[in-house]
Amino acid sequence: MDAVQRIEQALEAALARGLGAEAPPLLAQAARHAVMAPASRARPRLLLAVAHACGDDVPALSDAAAASLELLHCASLVHDDLPCFDDADLRRGQPTVHRAFGERLAVLAGDGLIVLAFENLAWHAPRHPARLVSLTGIIGRAVGLATGIVAGQAWECEPQVDLTAYHRQKTAALFSAATEAGAAAAGMDPDPWGRLGENLGLAYQVADDLRDVASSAEELGKPVGQDAAHGRPSAVAELGVEGAMERLLELMRGAVDSIPDCPGADQLRAMVRAEMQRLLPRQLGERLG
Amino acid sequence: MDAVQRIEQALEAALARGLGAEAPPLLAQAARHAVMAPASRARPRLLLAVAHACGDDVPALSDAAAASLELLHCASLVHDDLPCFDDADLRRGQPTVHRAFGERLAVLAGDGLIVLAFENLAWHAPRHPARLVSLTGIIGRAVGLATGIVAGQAWECEPQVDLTAYHRQKTAALFSAATEAGAAAAGMDPDPWGRLGENLGLAYQVADDLRDVASSAEELGKPVGQDAAHGRPSAVAELGVEGAMERLLELMRGAVDSIPDCPGADQLRAMVRAEMQRLLPRQLGERLG
Repeated sequence: MDAVQRIEQALEAALARGLGAEAPPLLAQAARHAVMAPASRARPRLLLAVAHACGDDVPALSDAAAASLELLHCASLVHDDLPCFDDADLRRGQPTVHRAFGERLAVLAGDGLIVLAFENLAWHAPRHPARLVSLTGIIGRAVGLATGIVAGQAWECEPQVDLTAYHRQKTAALFSAATEAGAAAAGMDPDPWGRLGENLGLAYQVADDLRDVASSAEELGKPVGQDAAHGRPSAVAELGVEGAMERLLELMRGAVDSIPDCPGADQLRAMVRAEMQRLLPRQLGERLG
Repeated sequence: MDAVQRIEQALEAALARGLGAEAPPLLAQAARHAVMAPASRARPRLLLAVAHACGDDVPALSDAAAASLELLHCASLVHDDLPCFDDADLRRGQPTVHRAFGERLAVLAGDGLIVLAFENLAWHAPRHPARLVSLTGIIGRAVGLATGIVAGQAWECEPQVDLTAYHRQKTAALFSAATEAGAAAAGMDPDPWGRLGENLGLAYQVADDLRDVASSAEELGKPVGQDAAHGRPSAVAELGVEGAMERLLELMRGAVDSIPDCPGADQLRAMVRAEMQRLLPRQLGERLG
C-alpha cells in the first residue's frame, strides 16, 4: 500500500471511530467535509517517509500519527477560513465548512478535530505508551499557544508582528512535527529530524506565497491574491518574486543537507525535490531543474 | 494544600509552560483571561476528590489531569460565548474573551487551550505512560465529536435535537470524565466511577437551568434567562421548576448511591451534598436540607 492510501485509510478510520454512530449528523458531515476533500497530504506523507527511513516498526502507530497531524492541519484550515479571519468561500476546490454548514458547526468541527487528533494517537499507543508521551509533546508543541500554528495565526492579531516567529509557527511548525513524529512513531530519537521539517516547512510557506501571486484560482483550488488583500506578511511582499525564489532554493538545499545518515536518505532527498516541484506554480517549477 | 489551591497552582503551571516566553502577547493575555477568572472549579475538585479516595499515589499527575479538565471546560466556554453561539458579554463576572480581545483571539485562545490540555497530561506522565493512554482516552471522549461537549453543543445546530444526548454530553460528559480520570490518574480502574460523575453532571445541568430562571445576574456572574432567550432545551422548560427540583434530588440520590466502596466514601458523599447546595439558587438550596 502506498503512503497516500495509508493516510486516507488512517483518516477514514480516525473519523469512523471518532464520530461513531452517535455524533450529531450535521457535525459529522462537517467534520468529514473538512478532512476528506482532495488534498496533497504533504505533512502526513513527510511523516511516513521519515518513519520509513527510521524502520517503521509499528506501522499502525505511524499511520495514526500521520492522520492526527493531518486532522490538526484540517482543523486549522476550518478555523482560518472563518468570517472573523479570512472569510474564505473556497478551500480545496469546494465550499469552506462555514459556507456549507454555518459558522457554528465550523467552530465545533474544528474543535472536535483537534480533540480527535490527540485521541487517535492514544487509541494506537496502548502497547507503546512511552511513544504516546513523545508524540503528544511533539504534536502539541507544533499546534499550541507558544510556538504552534495557533501562535502563528495569532501573530496576525498583534500590533507588532514577529515575522520570523510568524512563518516558523504558521507553516514550519507542522512540518517539523511531521519529521520528528515520524521518527518518534518508529521509536527513534526525534531531535536530529527537526531541521529537515523546519526547512521544508519554511520552503512550503515561500512556495505558498509564490503561488498566491503566480497561480490561477483554478490551479490553486482557492482564491489567489489573498495575502495582499488581507495585508498579510508574505515572502513575496518582503523579497519580490525573484528574491523569494532564491530563498526557496536555499531552504531546499538546507532541507536536503539536514537529512540524517540513514538507509532511506536517498529516497528522502528525491522526495524533497519532487515535493518542491509540485508546490510551485507551473511557470516557476520549471526553474528548479 | 487544599484542593482549590492545588488546582489553581496546576492551572498556573500549565499556562506558564504552555505559553512560555514566546506566545504572542495578546494571545497569552486572552488565554489567561479565559482560565484565571474566579470560578468554582467544580470538575477538577471532583477529580481530585475521587483521586484522593483512590489513594492519589502520583499527586502531580492528578493535579495535571484536574488542570487539563478545567482548561477544556474554559475553552468550551470561550467558544460557546462567541457571537455565532450565545454572543455573551459576561462570563464569571467579567467580559467574555471575545469582548475583551476580539473574536479572532477568542477562537484561537479556545483552540490553544484544547491543545494545552492534552500536552499538559503528557508533560506529567513520562513515568506513568500507560496512565496517559487511559487519561487521554477518557478526557478525549468527554470533549469529542461523538459523545463529548463538542457533540453536546452541536445538538443546538440540528433540526432534530436528541435531548438525552444533549444533556448527557453538554454537561454530564465532563463530570463523568472527572470521576473516571480521578481514578485513572491514581492508577485505578476508572469504570466503576463513571456513574457518580454522570449523575452529578446531569444534576449540575438541572441546577444550572434552575439558576437561569431563579437567580439574579449578580449572583450568577452572567446574564439570566439565556435558555429561554436562545430557545435552548432546558429542564425547567420541560418539567417546570417543581419538576426540575424533583429530578435534581433524584440525581443526587443516584450520585450518592453510586459511590464505590472505598476508604473515602463518606467524605465524597458529604462533598456531593455540599456541591448541590452551592449550585442551587439560594431560595431553592434551602430545600435540600
